[in-house]
Amino acid sequence: MKQFNDLADFQVEEIDALLQLAARLEKNPEPTALRGKVLALLFLSPSLRTLASFQAAMTRLGGGSFVISPNMSIHGLETRPGIVMDGMAAEHIREAVPVIASYGDAIGIRAFANRENLETDLADSEFNELLQLCNIPQINMESSINHPCQSLADWKTMDELNVPRQGGKFVLSWAYHPRALPLAVPASTVHMAAMRGMDVTVLRPDGFELPEQVMHKAKQAAAASGGSVRETDDRGEALEGANIIYAKSWSSTRHYGNLPADEKLRHGLEGWCVDDPWFETAQEDCRFMHCLPVRRGVVVADRVLDGPRSVVIQEARNRMYAQMAVLHQLLK
Amino acid sequence: MKQFNDLADFQVEEIDALLQLAARLEKNPEPTALRGKVLALLFLSPSLRTLASFQAAMTRLGGGSFVISPNMSIHGLETRPGIVMDGMAAEHIREAVPVIASYGDAIGIRAFANRENLETDLADSEFNELLQLCNIPQINMESSINHPCQSLADWKTMDELNVPRQGGKFVLSWAYHPRALPLAVPASTVHMAAMRGMDVTVLRPDGFELPEQVMHKAKQAAAASGGSVRETDDRGEALEGANIIYAKSWSSTRHYGNLPADEKLRHGLEGWCVDDPWFETAQEDCRFMHCLPVRRGVVVADRVLDGPRSVVIQEARNRMYAQMAVLHQLLK
Amino acid sequence: MKQFNDLADFQVEEIDALLQLAARLEKNPEPTALRGKVLALLFLSPSLRTLASFQAAMTRLGGGSFVISPNMSIHGLETRPGIVMDGMAAEHIREAVPVIASYGDAIGIRAFANRENLETDLADSEFNELLQLCNIPQINMESSINHPCQSLADWKTMDELNVPRQGGKFVLSWAYHPRALPLAVPASTVHMAAMRGMDVTVLRPDGFELPEQVMHKAKQAAAASGGSVRETDDRGEALEGANIIYAKSWSSTRHYGNLPADEKLRHGLEGWCVDDPWFETAQEDCRFMHCLPVRRGVVVADRVLDGPRSVVIQEARNRMYAQMAVLHQLLK
Repeated sequence: MKQFNDLADFQVEEIDALLQLAARLEKNPEPTALRGKVLALLFLSPSLRTLASFQAAMTRLGGGSFVISPNMSIHGLETRPGIVMDGMAAEHIREAVPVIASYGDAIGIRAFANRENLETDLADSEFNELLQLCNIPQINMESSINHPCQSLADWKTMDELNVPRQGGKFVLSWAYHPRALPLAVPASTVHMAAMRGMDVTVLRPDGFELPEQVMHKAKQAAAASGGSVRETDDRGEALEGANIIYAKSWSSTRHYGNLPADEKLRHGLEGWCVDDPWFETAQEDCRFMHCLPVRRGVVVADRVLDGPRSVVIQEARNRMYAQMAVLHQLLK
Repeated sequence: MKQFNDLADFQVEEIDALLQLAARLEKNPEPTALRGKVLALLFLSPSLRTLASFQAAMTRLGGGSFVISPNMSIHGLETRPGIVMDGMAAEHIREAVPVIASYGDAIGIRAFANRENLETDLADSEFNELLQLCNIPQINMESSINHPCQSLADWKTMDELNVPRQGGKFVLSWAYHPRALPLAVPASTVHMAAMRGMDVTVLRPDGFELPEQVMHKAKQAAAASGGSVRETDDRGEALEGANIIYAKSWSSTRHYGNLPADEKLRHGLEGWCVDDPWFETAQEDCRFMHCLPVRRGVVVADRVLDGPRSVVIQEARNRMYAQMAVLHQLLK
Repeated sequence: MKQFNDLADFQVEEIDALLQLAARLEKNPEPTALRGKVLALLFLSPSLRTLASFQAAMTRLGGGSFVISPNMSIHGLETRPGIVMDGMAAEHIREAVPVIASYGDAIGIRAFANRENLETDLADSEFNELLQLCNIPQINMESSINHPCQSLADWKTMDELNVPRQGGKFVLSWAYHPRALPLAVPASTVHMAAMRGMDVTVLRPDGFELPEQVMHKAKQAAAASGGSVRETDDRGEALEGANIIYAKSWSSTRHYGNLPADEKLRHGLEGWCVDDPWFETAQEDCRFMHCLPVRRGVVVADRVLDGPRSVVIQEARNRMYAQMAVLHQLLK
């Protein structure tokens, strides 16, 4: 294993092996496994869970990490090729990234989508450029279109809760949010649930359809795993019999990159806030999932988030164990 | 031991055991004691000594830590209950704190007083709310009304200097400062010196009396330890025979939360700057203490701070060893 | 070894021993060598390579580090002696630095030149003041006039590339840059190459002569090692037969501290950008070196930086191994 960039690069059996390793490391710590090993953490976008859980993961395995973030330590990094750097930026990613990588045994990179051009973001082209600048094992800590660490943690969480794979009904629901957010989590999530063999419904209002390419990839994973993937805007039908309601807001794909049009479209959609009635026709033990951070009273009602259905803290905690397994595989 | 939040939660014998452990770890390092263990450090208020000394403490014991501070990594944390989060804050402490705690074996939290309402700050209610969000061992890294790590380090410093417990005279003196500062250090300090069995005098100008509740708690500790606690504004009388002059500025308690009134009251009190004459009637080996940071020429004269009476660096260094003992007790 | 502040404090044989140690640690890791040891890192100026490489170095040797930077954690540090601190700064370096040092087994300090007064900067007086506040082993992470870690890494890089010592021709060339940069790297570099026994040419436009004191020190090193040092503004003559072209921009020394005059002088010098033609009369295997960060298209052309002559990433990577050797010597 040389890279953890996309669950789609693995077979279900390989994911299962990672999850077994994660569970083993949770129960039986290996505090010298990665002794003297260094994880380079490059955050081109902000972070809380990822920042904390990767540092904690390396400590638990006996290694260490360092964090580089433009806000902390550098005056802007230039990314454009062929540019004459006579402006503010004092360093180009073509030097900064290989140098940072040269101090690590593996590197984690976070770089959110620009959200200007859908095709560029779907191709993850800027992130792939960053990866190509490193010749050590790489971990995607959220790119334009992927967040595999979150998805691995979510898979682990569902396994722990005995949420059925085959026949389990997974609803990924769009939720209201004042801002147009990236597609990385919804795209990763729908693929993960499909790969897990579940019957996946993407529930979203008109204009927020997931991109064709994202749906196609998820459908391929479903076909291989015996699951299914579909999309609807009919909440009543979508939620019936759900084992999981996974809430997440994302940008309008109809008006991708056009913030005023996106804002106009989401105006009036404040009712897309997951609340108790959403669970009425769901399975009795239906769980509420979210990747965090989550806006209370906007994306989900307090009584759901604070109630017994919510497993958001467990998901976040599983980030650490999932990542420990990935690091163990990459570096041990 | 599940929490290190207040010296008042411990017996003098337990504090002595902690101090013996601190001294032992100072002389005989245990670089594998906390192998693979993680300390989560959450700073909702700024820090230098605490930030550095806790990280160093964990390294010296073979473990590690990570730091989360709103300035570094997150766009503001919401704290109000029941709020609809449609503004700037993207995350609520009700998720952020349990998540951060979920990555640690113990958590240290710093959150200064709001200094708006004295009763709220005395009750440490906001800090206690944060503690209740964590189900792992907790360390108070300075709350509204407590700073137990500083007090434990100060106790260790006085023991090392053979400052008498019974019969030792400890003067906590208010000092001038351009801003209205929190009560945490004076409240912790008066209680610590009383618990140590000393005769404690709080020397402060009119309007800067320590709150009744703080004095009452300190008097109870004195009663149990054979010490005493009193308050005065008579400098000459207060300083006579002092073993320790501990300087610290704090807010006016008469005008707590009223900054203009506080400023008016402290106007003209610039003479409350500890200088050589303060030591004239004190014990010959009377020491100057302060928790740092300290404003030179405002709180204390350079010749005192740079002279042989000053033990401020020793106090700061003892933060690390005191905290190593606490961490060893909580995590080993 | 109690300090790593200047290559001039060492004999060539001692540098060779450090480089052998660096190479050994690169090949045969010692992940428990500095178990439980702490490196304090104080950045009074920004950093990327130094920040990352020192943290990684300590992890690889089994110890740890903490970072203090005014931007991160403290509200400005006062540096003026005898000042009445009634302004913004809440802490003086006379407390902050000893306290930070008290938590470490060694301390690294970075403080760039003020670039107001040449004599002060050449004397490194402010940096030496900082060093005198610490009573533990000290590492210069770039001061007004020195950057010994960079120079040690550059020396290692040239050794790896079999660049000749005696008879090797080293050209340190000034390069255009929109801002007036410090003298630390050019001063360190010319001394290092001279100490290595090379024939050193400083190539720079009129008004950018290196200070007499810097040249004198380099010439002394050359005399001891059998090398030579000279300065010229004749590019054609300078580059002939070069084994190394080391590019770096620096302030005008004629107008040191006078930014408008410096800017006027560098106006029109945009042609000082290292490009392919610079290598025409150089050795066939002539290498391009730079300490990074580097401005593409300004200091050096993309085709040089991206071509086979460039060893800038190797130099940066060697920072880590050079520093591991220094830390091993100071702390093991």
